[in-house]
Amino acid sequence: MSRDRTIYLPLGGAGEIGMNAYVYGYGPQDAERLIVVDLGVTFPDMDTTPGVDLILPDIRWLEERRDRIEAIFITHAHEDHVGAVGHLWERLRAPVHARAFTAHHARRKLEEQGFDPETVTVAEPYPAVVEAGPFRVSFVPISHSIPESSGLLIETPDARVVHSGDFKIDESPVVGEAFDKSLWARVGEGGVDALICDSTNVFSEHPGRSETTVGPAIEELMRAAPGLVCATTFASNIARLKTLAEAGVRAGRSVCLLGRAMRRMVEAGTLTGVLKDFPSTVSPEEAAHIPRENLLLIVTGSQGERRAASAQLANGRYLGLELKEGDTFLFSSKTIPGNERGVIKIMNQLSEKGVEVVDDSGGKYHVSGHANRPDLEEMHRLVHPKALIPNHGEHRHLREHVKLGEAAGIPGTLAVNGTMVSLSGGLPSVVGYVETGRTYLDGKVQIGAMDGIVRDRIRMALNGHVTVTLIIDEDGEPLGDPWCEIMGLPETGVSNGALVEVLENALAGWMQRAEAKVLRDDAVLEKDLRILTRRTAENEIGKKPEVTVVVSRLS
Amino acid sequence: MSRDRTIYLPLGGAGEIGMNAYVYGYGPQDAERLIVVDLGVTFPDMDTTPGVDLILPDIRWLEERRDRIEAIFITHAHEDHVGAVGHLWERLRAPVHARAFTAHHARRKLEEQGFDPETVTVAEPYPAVVEAGPFRVSFVPISHSIPESSGLLIETPDARVVHSGDFKIDESPVVGEAFDKSLWARVGEGGVDALICDSTNVFSEHPGRSETTVGPAIEELMRAAPGLVCATTFASNIARLKTLAEAGVRAGRSVCLLGRAMRRMVEAGTLTGVLKDFPSTVSPEEAAHIPRENLLLIVTGSQGERRAASAQLANGRYLGLELKEGDTFLFSSKTIPGNERGVIKIMNQLSEKGVEVVDDSGGKYHVSGHANRPDLEEMHRLVHPKALIPNHGEHRHLREHVKLGEAAGIPGTLAVNGTMVSLSGGLPSVVGYVETGRTYLDGKVQIGAMDGIVRDRIRMALNGHVTVTLIIDEDGEPLGDPWCEIMGLPETGVSNGALVEVLENALAGWMQRAEAKVLRDDAVLEKDLRILTRRTAENEIGKKPEVTVVVSRLS
Repeated sequence: MSRDRTIYLPLGGAGEIGMNAYVYGYGPQDAERLIVVDLGVTFPDMDTTPGVDLILPDIRWLEERRDRIEAIFITHAHEDHVGAVGHLWERLRAPVHARAFTAHHARRKLEEQGFDPETVTVAEPYPAVVEAGPFRVSFVPISHSIPESSGLLIETPDARVVHSGDFKIDESPVVGEAFDKSLWARVGEGGVDALICDSTNVFSEHPGRSETTVGPAIEELMRAAPGLVCATTFASNIARLKTLAEAGVRAGRSVCLLGRAMRRMVEAGTLTGVLKDFPSTVSPEEAAHIPRENLLLIVTGSQGERRAASAQLANGRYLGLELKEGDTFLFSSKTIPGNERGVIKIMNQLSEKGVEVVDDSGGKYHVSGHANRPDLEEMHRLVHPKALIPNHGEHRHLREHVKLGEAAGIPGTLAVNGTMVSLSGGLPSVVGYVETGRTYLDGKVQIGAMDGIVRDRIRMALNGHVTVTLIIDEDGEPLGDPWCEIMGLPETGVSNGALVEVLENALAGWMQRAEAKVLRDDAVLEKDLRILTRRTAENEIGKKPEVTVVVSRLS
Repeated sequence: MSRDRTIYLPLGGAGEIGMNAYVYGYGPQDAERLIVVDLGVTFPDMDTTPGVDLILPDIRWLEERRDRIEAIFITHAHEDHVGAVGHLWERLRAPVHARAFTAHHARRKLEEQGFDPETVTVAEPYPAVVEAGPFRVSFVPISHSIPESSGLLIETPDARVVHSGDFKIDESPVVGEAFDKSLWARVGEGGVDALICDSTNVFSEHPGRSETTVGPAIEELMRAAPGLVCATTFASNIARLKTLAEAGVRAGRSVCLLGRAMRRMVEAGTLTGVLKDFPSTVSPEEAAHIPRENLLLIVTGSQGERRAASAQLANGRYLGLELKEGDTFLFSSKTIPGNERGVIKIMNQLSEKGVEVVDDSGGKYHVSGHANRPDLEEMHRLVHPKALIPNHGEHRHLREHVKLGEAAGIPGTLAVNGTMVSLSGGLPSVVGYVETGRTYLDGKVQIGAMDGIVRDRIRMALNGHVTVTLIIDEDGEPLGDPWCEIMGLPETGVSNGALVEVLENALAGWMQRAEAKVLRDDAVLEKDLRILTRRTAENEIGKKPEVTVVVSRLS
């Protein structure tokens, strides 16, 4: 009797939106052969991760089992699915499989980090199969907001699993493959033990709309606009870029793409053959000579990113182009929670220039790339799995998705990051928990989220910093009084004296009373000086700063 | 011929939502007698104001003209209108006028800062008049999301102005005075030179709904909920508190208020007579013994504030109460942009506990306290001013509001903070600009937004901090090598050596080559050590830290 089993283990993306990273395994317990599905990133913010460049999944569990990894599969080219490939590949060193457009991006990411792009093999769509140890994996085309997104059909000797990846049900997606209901029904007909399924939009009550539905409204807007039109959306949403560009052309406008990501994506789409008949574009230099009412700019920065083209145009000139009174700026996008302030700032800067800002608050100029609640139900019906394991969503999304499935009679398992689920023999069951977390790319270094480094930065941001220096001479006597330097703190406090002097006076007074044995012990001395500095500052300015104490002993 | 004039000058709230502070003046140019309308705060965030406690308007312009200030008028008791009174009053020292409920709050704020609460005089509503120098000011009752909100009718010898304050058109507001269209029409009949008007909801297309419309849906939810119901809203929205409590009672639930602000507001409402017939409540201790299906908690923290009752309940127990599987948590509130992450965090913590979270995404459980676009048009019609000056709104709101008024034939003036507008003789005209800005309450100290203190904190948060110490002996020779200490930086970089050692080696090497004249000059020495530290760190870890250099010279 075989004790082999099929397991599922999310390391990122289950209990959060972003940073997708999933593991499947097959084999004897604790010796399963493994595949990885997606290696994505999430983005830092000032509240929790100041100074951090990117947030990657903590893959120590995988790294320690590197010899068991057969392959890495990437479902699509969004950063939260492919963004960590370049940064983490060295620690895994397994072959990467992706469809052509996704592979193009994965290869670039590997190259940027100095690895061989040929590590990535281009996969053909289902019914083609990639064999990886005991796994047979097929890329099943599925519609989303980026070309060549795929769900994965994963077969092991004892389980047949569908990993949906991010998707929507769009039967006319403008660019790339339409959602093919008969194809997904065929996949389901083979019998599916578990559907691991995108959950981000489970709270959206209405059926999702097709990409084709936004074109007419956008064209109408562009025709009516008296001046230049500038539109922004995610650069990776190539279908939207095409929708925008074609609407612009129909409205008598020349199209200019601004922002590196925008040009890169169109190039990648053209190179890999997924993007055909994109309208011809003009350069920024040419654009500057076209009458405003005949010009459409399509720009990066829909999330208010500070260095993107939209922010630069809102702030002033960009590549010789400038927005003016009478121009129109279209956000053909949704603002991701947390990015509101950045987007609103741009809107107000544009308002100051007299530019009309149009956003999607009316629902006319954007459609989501994810399956809404009724679409999830449709997917459940098509695949009719024996069990449902929601993924890609915060806890509330996963929980709601489990309830949605159960209402239709499909048993569900709520498995957040680190939950190991057995998919063998009957319904999925939780068989263990693995330590997971986040790794920060911080400049050139990867640091752990729990290392305390970012915590110290946050504390300095909240409390300011004091440097205290003290010199002890050869005889163990203080040479002069401690000195203080402040950073990020007010110069004067409630006593109206200089804060530095108030601190130095307090420390000098304490030094005079300090016992010899305290002066001999660096650790005690540093601790006592730190405490006194914090207490004095609290009295004087109402803040307890972070303190660096440097005791120099002459010898 | 008199050269007296009436002026309007926003110092806060015009070009932003929050921090309302407006000045009106009457008299000869540059010698106008002044009144202040509202002294509000806005709230800090990690992105721009880490460590700051509150953001106050910069009132230097007013302070320098303190002898010309006749009085301060507060329209209502929201923090963004009254919150700075305690912190700024000392610098203005003028009598304060407000209606009873608002006065209650203003007095407490003065008392907390050690000032005489009797500085605040309770005003009676229109047609009563407060005389303040050349000004005659009436508090005209207007509906909003807090009791006794007032628009101000401000009369000078040469102008008659309506300052709406925050408002909505609610003819059945549950608590407090209904919006009285005939009253506002009468105010308008006297001829209004300028309407200074709330703009926050100018982009909301649908007519606002009355507070009474949310009660039935809330009651239905509370009846259907199988376990405990916990509801949150702004504590100051006393009408909503009453709506929630009464719905709870009708659904067979005892009501328990959690959170200091919640209890304070109900107390203030009862004391000042604006809140009548609030259902009796139970204490947290009593609540712990009531069956869950018969209990309603009304709690603070609708914006995800970390220390509020909602966050504590989401996180664990609070005053002996704990939420469990089967309970329901209702956000009877809107999430203010920028607070999404905090609110979502609480939602997910509740989801982990198995609590059903209901928010207002369907529009059933909350109504806004501000006038929507059609309500603004109604207000324009009622007051029929000769001119419109939108206030309380970001630039985009003010601009849109000007356009809205102009579409109805009312000329508008877009006046952001610092814009001085003459209201005398014909249409309003911009007559000058005044320097404005923000003051930060930082612990016990008020600091300027441009002082560089917060900028340094942000830099430390982004870049980390290095302390470099160097001792120079009596002969001007370095005593040993420079020492480094790091905070908020990784221990090791790309060379895999300790970052501190890499920095110290670089500095030591540089010291050996440094010329004597550099070693003699503290400023040059500090600058060179700082630059070298930053450059070395950038090579090693990809970040340029903030550096404090302390050079100690023995003598």
